[in-house]
Amino acid sequence: MERMRVRTDLALEAKESFEGSDTEVHGVVVEEEYDEERDIRLTRVQIVSERGAREMGKPMGNYLTLEAPGMAAPDEDYHREISRALAFYLKELMGEEKERSILVAGLGNRDVTPDALGPKTVSNLLITRHLIKEYGKGVMGTECSNMVSGIVPGVMAQTGMETSEIIRGIVDQTSPDLLIVIDALAARSTKRLSRTIQLTDTGIQPGSGVGNHRNCLTEESLGIPVIAIGVPTVVEAAAIIYDSQGNCEQMPPHLNGMFVTPKNIDETIKQLSFTLSEALNMAFELSGEA
Amino acid sequence: MERMRVRTDLALEAKESFEGSDTEVHGVVVEEEYDEERDIRLTRVQIVSERGAREMGKPMGNYLTLEAPGMAAPDEDYHREISRALAFYLKELMGEEKERSILVAGLGNRDVTPDALGPKTVSNLLITRHLIKEYGKGVMGTECSNMVSGIVPGVMAQTGMETSEIIRGIVDQTSPDLLIVIDALAARSTKRLSRTIQLTDTGIQPGSGVGNHRNCLTEESLGIPVIAIGVPTVVEAAAIIYDSQGNCEQMPPHLNGMFVTPKNIDETIKQLSFTLSEALNMAFELSGEA
Amino acid sequence: MERMRVRTDLALEAKESFEGSDTEVHGVVVEEEYDEERDIRLTRVQIVSERGAREMGKPMGNYLTLEAPGMAAPDEDYHREISRALAFYLKELMGEEKERSILVAGLGNRDVTPDALGPKTVSNLLITRHLIKEYGKGVMGTECSNMVSGIVPGVMAQTGMETSEIIRGIVDQTSPDLLIVIDALAARSTKRLSRTIQLTDTGIQPGSGVGNHRNCLTEESLGIPVIAIGVPTVVEAAAIIYDSQGNCEQMPPHLNGMFVTPKNIDETIKQLSFTLSEALNMAFELSGEA
Amino acid sequence: MERMRVRTDLALEAKESFEGSDTEVHGVVVEEEYDEERDIRLTRVQIVSERGAREMGKPMGNYLTLEAPGMAAPDEDYHREISRALAFYLKELMGEEKERSILVAGLGNRDVTPDALGPKTVSNLLITRHLIKEYGKGVMGTECSNMVSGIVPGVMAQTGMETSEIIRGIVDQTSPDLLIVIDALAARSTKRLSRTIQLTDTGIQPGSGVGNHRNCLTEESLGIPVIAIGVPTVVEAAAIIYDSQGNCEQMPPHLNGMFVTPKNIDETIKQLSFTLSEALNMAFELSGEA
Repeated sequence: MERMRVRTDLALEAKESFEGSDTEVHGVVVEEEYDEERDIRLTRVQIVSERGAREMGKPMGNYLTLEAPGMAAPDEDYHREISRALAFYLKELMGEEKERSILVAGLGNRDVTPDALGPKTVSNLLITRHLIKEYGKGVMGTECSNMVSGIVPGVMAQTGMETSEIIRGIVDQTSPDLLIVIDALAARSTKRLSRTIQLTDTGIQPGSGVGNHRNCLTEESLGIPVIAIGVPTVVEAAAIIYDSQGNCEQMPPHLNGMFVTPKNIDETIKQLSFTLSEALNMAFELSGEA
Repeated sequence: MERMRVRTDLALEAKESFEGSDTEVHGVVVEEEYDEERDIRLTRVQIVSERGAREMGKPMGNYLTLEAPGMAAPDEDYHREISRALAFYLKELMGEEKERSILVAGLGNRDVTPDALGPKTVSNLLITRHLIKEYGKGVMGTECSNMVSGIVPGVMAQTGMETSEIIRGIVDQTSPDLLIVIDALAARSTKRLSRTIQLTDTGIQPGSGVGNHRNCLTEESLGIPVIAIGVPTVVEAAAIIYDSQGNCEQMPPHLNGMFVTPKNIDETIKQLSFTLSEALNMAFELSGEA
Repeated sequence: MERMRVRTDLALEAKESFEGSDTEVHGVVVEEEYDEERDIRLTRVQIVSERGAREMGKPMGNYLTLEAPGMAAPDEDYHREISRALAFYLKELMGEEKERSILVAGLGNRDVTPDALGPKTVSNLLITRHLIKEYGKGVMGTECSNMVSGIVPGVMAQTGMETSEIIRGIVDQTSPDLLIVIDALAARSTKRLSRTIQLTDTGIQPGSGVGNHRNCLTEESLGIPVIAIGVPTVVEAAAIIYDSQGNCEQMPPHLNGMFVTPKNIDETIKQLSFTLSEALNMAFELSGEA
Repeated sequence: MERMRVRTDLALEAKESFEGSDTEVHGVVVEEEYDEERDIRLTRVQIVSERGAREMGKPMGNYLTLEAPGMAAPDEDYHREISRALAFYLKELMGEEKERSILVAGLGNRDVTPDALGPKTVSNLLITRHLIKEYGKGVMGTECSNMVSGIVPGVMAQTGMETSEIIRGIVDQTSPDLLIVIDALAARSTKRLSRTIQLTDTGIQPGSGVGNHRNCLTEESLGIPVIAIGVPTVVEAAAIIYDSQGNCEQMPPHLNGMFVTPKNIDETIKQLSFTLSEALNMAFELSGEA
């Protein structure tokens, strides 16, 4: 379909591309919640059938999208609100189990500012696996003892390896119960940039992310549940042409491999990575809160 | 004029926007040299009259543009060729004088990859001013003793100050004979990205560079000659819309402050900053060559 | 005097070197406060006479030293307590005046981990000068409107210039009412590392800091008040030899220019720089607190 | 033995600790070559028996140590000489085989300057595995087609995992023929710092490196040959006390986890990492030379 020619990593945007058409998408359930006080909107997109998955171009599963306009602004107290909300929904996807071993992978290229979200988030996590292995469960002084490990695998141009090869090797060796991957995403529209966080239990699909990871990181491929947390930080250059033209017929080939990003992306990535790492520390019950 | 609505930092592109029209631009002299063996093209644009300056939207002076398609590729020997060519033309603009005090300023934001060209170049320069002041002219073991100092002033969002305020203060205190500024530029077209280096003796104008420096760094404002070295590393998002539409009437306002850049910009900036710092070290006669 | 042969940047340590001797130091007043609940100790050393200054090897003025053992541990709530205490004492030194223009300089080398405290602190400050100049006093949405600017001048090996030349130039151009300098210090003993913060209204003296800045940053040299905030992050290699031997007679010359620092200094610098930047934002009344 | 109480990662230093004693070390063969013109000294220590291994505190195998006083100085031409020598000896250890798959691991903490040697070296390697897998052997335009991959695993405080767990996982998934690990080492004496490179075919032992990796990276543990390249960049704080006292009886416990390093370590690490990456590119026959 013409309207799907421009790639998006966001289920929310895939859904929106059907709006205006008078058909509902079979096998896709959408719910919205709006927290007026904190100005945080949550959209749940559930893809419950193969047909829904085909139409959406995304695998079956749950997609939670949290939108908050002030997400990238330098207001520490508001960030904590977003972190709390994010931790809440993340725990919903993680389930009730306690004392798990959780590997967090920060995908992307730390040397390209809008792609550094994953690496920066992992660098601010509380890492506990080695401490608990050496000193026992009480070491963190909290009731819960999740063993958290973290990895920043780098991108293929830096390693010569697929991200999935590296992660699979580490998963095999260290046997975590759960993998959480953090990734910078490509949105369809600049409106979504740096104000939207997507959580999904479907993992990472080929061709997603700013750097277009080609292989899967999914429960099917790795044997453990995979939660992906993504924030759109770029738009493919093709998409903004499409938006202004309504079609892609005159898409110049030299725009392949080009992305569009805001000039103050350094500040945005700094703020967002704090928000995400704080949310993860809360969800893992390693911080005083949540 | 319609055709000038999209900003370019390159004199070469400003000139090209007149091509196809049957009028020559008064007061603008253009010469080309092509080194076939090394595949390096040099274009000299001289703006010799006020009228030429007005038409070009650039001040009177010399603009040398060096184009080499392989500039960003990881071939060390070819880079040295480009560095040598660049050093040669830089010395042409610098003049014959020896034993000067030269301040090199690396403009731009080191935390935004395509804007980090200036900061990275300065970090690889041979800095000699403090050594010559402490140990005398023979300290570097070469015949020539240029006193080189370097500064990375940061951008206004980081400092709260105009770059020009910082540079002027440092120039006043340390009295260099010459200022060289390095800056990442915005090109009009993605074709120019990372394969074009512009040298000019006109300094830096308001509104130029990736981060849109608002104030001048010119001989008029600082009292010493100012050479600017710029490499286009981004295109304004508006420009690629313009290119695909032929006009800017439907330019979406949310594209203000957005830029387009290649995904592998980290590698490009690394290569280019080495090429520039090597060229500067050669031109200052601090390296074995040139 | 033998006992003073090993350099310390801390007035507290200079004072301690007289302990055990039965003479009081004339012209030096020492007071201590201890906050048991938060385990924060404050020591005020006032050097009130030239004779005291001579004996202490430090200029006349106020030195507040805040000690807290948990300062470098990753406990966000405790850090906020320390930031609050620090903001309180900083405001004491800053005085009551409102709506000032304040320049914060992060001294040191961002590429050497224990010396990166100043640069990292400045990178987390709320910078407001350019916003207030462009949009007026209400822009930050708080009652108070301090205009904050920040600079990371680099070290002499990187710039070829004295830090004092750069700062003086910027002070002349931008006319702040107050300069605050942040610097990593050399302590006399590893016991002080990363758990001590010194505030002083005497500025920076020659030969202080990890990188041994040679020139002054003082009210006398700059014409505006200068508050220095320092945290010891290294010990000179000579000092640990002295400690183990009781004298420096066999001090090996190759230990000049060597320093001692903990292996986890990266985590420490990250934590401390957040604590300092939060305290500064509070003291400038730009954060919700204080 | 008293004399072995202070740890060294260098076989050369382990050997020297026996000098002055009138016993030869059984099972240890030492040869020296000196290149006067280039002022490069090569020492081969071969540990050929279990008894030699026991006395030396190092496993059986070959240790090549290349010493060059000017190694850290900013002279590009001299660095190329050292890179060439290093590539030559590295090829000696690698053997004759062509068209291999080689994984290079940059051990250490990229956020602690003297420990960042491995990470920085890997970031300047020519990575070819993904290109050859996608485009075939001719892609690099040279006769030889080594498939080079690279990984920067991080340190345990960042990942919660042993470096050996991460490397083993990646080796299992990607099946390289050879592993090369780059690591910053702890020397016994400041004299060795930043002027010595050790190559060994024995891999990495527990307790070695600046950050004390606790597990093995050896042919025995991984099933493929492992070459370790190490450069001493720190001395344990304990060692300089030992040197000045001749014994460790009064070793203060707070010096555990402390290291000694030069103030200009940032420049040194930059130079050394270029020298190493250039040598590796040459040894892999990916650069024009060697």
